Amino acid sequence: MIDTLIQKIKEMENPTVVGLDPRLSMVPAHIREQAYETHGKTLQGVAAAFLAFNRAIIDAVYDLVPAVKPQIAMYEMYGAPGVQAFIDTVAYAKSKGLIVIGDVKRNDIASTAQAYSDGHLGEVEIEGSAAVPFDEDFITVNPYLGTDSIEPYFAQMKARNRGLFVLVKTSNPGSGEIQDLIMQQTGAPLYETVGQLVAQWGEPFIGQCGFSDIGAVVGATHPEQGKRLRKLLPYVFFLVPGYGAQGGSAQDLAGCFNQDGIGAIVNSSRGIIAAYQNARYQKQFTPEEFAQASRQAVLDMKADINSVL
Amino acid sequence: MIDTLIQKIKEMENPTVVGLDPRLSMVPAHIREQAYETHGKTLQGVAAAFLAFNRAIIDAVYDLVPAVKPQIAMYEMYGAPGVQAFIDTVAYAKSKGLIVIGDVKRNDIASTAQAYSDGHLGEVEIEGSAAVPFDEDFITVNPYLGTDSIEPYFAQMKARNRGLFVLVKTSNPGSGEIQDLIMQQTGAPLYETVGQLVAQWGEPFIGQCGFSDIGAVVGATHPEQGKRLRKLLPYVFFLVPGYGAQGGSAQDLAGCFNQDGIGAIVNSSRGIIAAYQNARYQKQFTPEEFAQASRQAVLDMKADINSVL
Repeated sequence: MIDTLIQKIKEMENPTVVGLDPRLSMVPAHIREQAYETHGKTLQGVAAAFLAFNRAIIDAVYDLVPAVKPQIAMYEMYGAPGVQAFIDTVAYAKSKGLIVIGDVKRNDIASTAQAYSDGHLGEVEIEGSAAVPFDEDFITVNPYLGTDSIEPYFAQMKARNRGLFVLVKTSNPGSGEIQDLIMQQTGAPLYETVGQLVAQWGEPFIGQCGFSDIGAVVGATHPEQGKRLRKLLPYVFFLVPGYGAQGGSAQDLAGCFNQDGIGAIVNSSRGIIAAYQNARYQKQFTPEEFAQASRQAVLDMKADINSVL
Repeated sequence: MIDTLIQKIKEMENPTVVGLDPRLSMVPAHIREQAYETHGKTLQGVAAAFLAFNRAIIDAVYDLVPAVKPQIAMYEMYGAPGVQAFIDTVAYAKSKGLIVIGDVKRNDIASTAQAYSDGHLGEVEIEGSAAVPFDEDFITVNPYLGTDSIEPYFAQMKARNRGLFVLVKTSNPGSGEIQDLIMQQTGAPLYETVGQLVAQWGEPFIGQCGFSDIGAVVGATHPEQGKRLRKLLPYVFFLVPGYGAQGGSAQDLAGCFNQDGIGAIVNSSRGIIAAYQNARYQKQFTPEEFAQASRQAVLDMKADINSVL
C-alpha cells in the first residue's frame, strides 16, 4: 500500500492528506438543516450531516490529493450512527480513488489487536461468509504495548495490501512528557527507541519504493526531532500531523522529507475542511461554497508544502 | 465513581469484574440461530447474538459482581451494528445496577480526546439538546501522549462522576519491551514514571475511600511489578487483567491489594463468559445453561481471589 500511496503522491505532486474530522460547528447550516429534515436533531441527523459534508469535500478535492484521513473520534462521539458515517466516508473516498488512512490509534493485547485488525484492515467471518466492516487502507496504532500488540496486524497487511502508521512523536504540545524521556541504555529519547522498533517491524514490508508499509506518526510541531528521525529511519514513511491549525509551518516539516521531496505525507484537517470559516477564504467563498473553499485551501497548502521541498 | 465501585466491592465481598468480550465461537448455537432468524447472518445478526448472550450473562451474575468490562474491539470489529451492541450492553448492565468499565484504550491529542470524553463519559450537544452516546462509568485510556491528552477527560469526570483507568503495566507477554525500559533520570522503568503521572493526575480526584477516580491498569501476569506499584501509588486503584486465560493466578495478583483486601479489581473474560466450554464446567452445564456456568465460574473466581486476600 505504501507503493500506491507514494505513486499517487508523485502523480499529483502533492504530499498532503485531508483530515476529514468534521465538527457540527464546521458544517454549514444548509447541510445540517437538510440532514435534520430527514433524521431529526438526533445522532442519525449528525451522521447524515457529516456524510453529506464529507462527500462534498471529497468531490471537490479527490483529483488534487492522494489520500484522506478521517479521525474516528469525531464520528464515534455520536455513537453507532457516527461510526456508520465514518464507514460510509471511507467507502465514498475509496470510490473516488482516494487512499484512506483511518486515524483510530487503536492498541491492545494480541487477541484484541487481532479483532481490530480483522475489523479495520481485514474481514470478519460470520458463519462461513465474510464481511468487510471498515476497509481502511492504513490505520494509526499506539505502540505502548510493544511488538506482540503490533504483530496481529501483519497477516491482514499482507493478505489485503494494507499499512500502519505507528505513533512515534505526536504533534501535541505535551508529547515530550513521556516520548522525550531519556532511556538509560541508549542515552536517547523514548521516541527514538519506538522509531527503531517501527523500522524493525516494517523491514519485511519494504516495497518497490524503498519505504515500508509500516510508517510513523511524526508531528510537524517538532521540526528538529522530525529531521533527526528522517535520518535515523530511512525506510519509514512519515504521517505528519500538526500543520496549520496546530501551529506547524511548511518550513517546520521540511526535515521530514528526503532531498527528493519524498518521505512524508502532511495532514491538515480544520485548515482544509473548515476553510470557508477562515478569514483568509471568508470573503471569497460563502458557506454554500464551502467545498470550493476547501479546494482552494488544498491548492494553497500544496503550493506551500512544495515551496520548501 | 471510585467510591461507588469500592462500596460495591465491599458489599459483595468480591473484587472482580466480568469481561464482556464475546466471540462468535463462544456464543451457543441456539442464541446465534435465534439472532440470525431475525437479522440474517449479517453484522446485525452478530450484534443481536452478542447482546442476547451478554444479557443472559448479566442476568446470571449481576448480584455477584460489582462491575462488568466490555472490550469494545470485540464489538467494533462488526462495524456500526457491533458498536450499537456495545452501547446496548452498557445500558443493560447499568439497568441491573452494575458499574461499567468501557475497555476502549482511547488516546489522542487534546481536541480529539475531548471528543472521546464527550462521547464515552459525557454528552454531546446537537443544536442545543444533549445526547449521551456511550454512558460508561469508567473508560481505559493509553498514556503515550502525556498529560494534555488526559486532561480533556477531567471536566466530564467531575460533571458526571466518571473515572479513568490508565494503562501503566499491561498484561501481555511483551509489555516490558517499552514499559520496562529504564529511564536515565530515575533509574526506574518507564511504567513507574507513568504510574507516578497517573497518581499526579488523580490527586484532585481522591474520594472518601482514599482512592482516586483515576486508576491504573496493572496486569496480573507481572506479580513483582504489581506489588511494587501498589506500594508506590497508595491512592491509585488498580484494574488487573490477565487472571485465568492469560495465565495470572490469584497468588500472582495478591500484591495488587492492600492488607485490608482493597486496592484492585480483577478482570476475567473468557474464563467467565465462555465457562460452559471449559473442561472444568462442561460436564455440569450444557450450552443452553451457559449463563449458569458463568455464574458458577464467578463464584469460583470470587472464592479463589478471596483465598489470597
